[in-house]
Amino acid sequence: MADDALFGFLHMEIVAHVYKEQATREDIDKERVTCVSTLELMGFRVGQGLIERFTKDCPTFKDDLDIMKFLCKDLWSTIFKKQIDNLRTNHQGTYVLQDNKFALLTQFSSGKQYIEEAPKYLAFSCGLIRGALSNLGLESVVTAELSLMPSCKFQVVVQKL
Amino acid sequence: MADDALFGFLHMEIVAHVYKEQATREDIDKERVTCVSTLELMGFRVGQGLIERFTKDCPTFKDDLDIMKFLCKDLWSTIFKKQIDNLRTNHQGTYVLQDNKFALLTQFSSGKQYIEEAPKYLAFSCGLIRGALSNLGLESVVTAELSLMPSCKFQVVVQKL
Repeated sequence: MADDALFGFLHMEIVAHVYKEQATREDIDKERVTCVSTLELMGFRVGQGLIERFTKDCPTFKDDLDIMKFLCKDLWSTIFKKQIDNLRTNHQGTYVLQDNKFALLTQFSSGKQYIEEAPKYLAFSCGLIRGALSNLGLESVVTAELSLMPSCKFQVVVQKL
Repeated sequence: MADDALFGFLHMEIVAHVYKEQATREDIDKERVTCVSTLELMGFRVGQGLIERFTKDCPTFKDDLDIMKFLCKDLWSTIFKKQIDNLRTNHQGTYVLQDNKFALLTQFSSGKQYIEEAPKYLAFSCGLIRGALSNLGLESVVTAELSLMPSCKFQVVVQKL
């Protein structure tokens, strides 16, 4: 019960801290970019660490889609206590993961009121996905898109080497 | 499995981030104090939030010792996946909580080698205890003491109003 709350509270603290520490800077746009990348990078490292622990006793994956399914089911349930609701792909390296009730957004009122605030609460999770995939051999670009809280879409574009 | 790892990794990231951001300052001692209090305050707020969620459906506590027992058993298990090994008190407001294998220190090699590095990995947890107690009506001062990794003692001195 308080278990998933721990991650949620800690995540809130990190976001608040990263933004507060840079609040003294003058250039607002630059600030926003830096904060988002700081959070993204923290997520990346956490994702890397988690997947290493998590796949220790796993069989190998047969292809990229298999990896994505593992991420949407197993990894997502562990971290966010629910699976991704919908996974789509164009079979050319682009995947869209839709979570209709994303755990880190449930604290916000539904609707469009706080939609501008949202990116800072998604950066860590984008990094988390990117880090997890990176450790499984897939370099990717991960972005988040939000239309109506607390629903949210992550787009993963796998980079061909 | 990866579940408790999530908190551990995130905690590591926070500590690293807080120390890195202040690494540019000149006054080393001042720096150390600031980092420790930043982490302590983050822990405080997380502790407050957690205990609120956690005691929602709990009966009330009959005295301070009852609160401490709850913290050592229920709250500690939720966060650190084990109970406090030993709780002692002088019955005058001082409590010593001993954890023989503290979750956030298990990554270090045992022994005295990294003992100087340890305080920064204990500040958050001191704050967590203080925040939890504060929300249950006990103002306290919490310090940590370490003699041999990964064992660690938290001393709680409840402030009389």
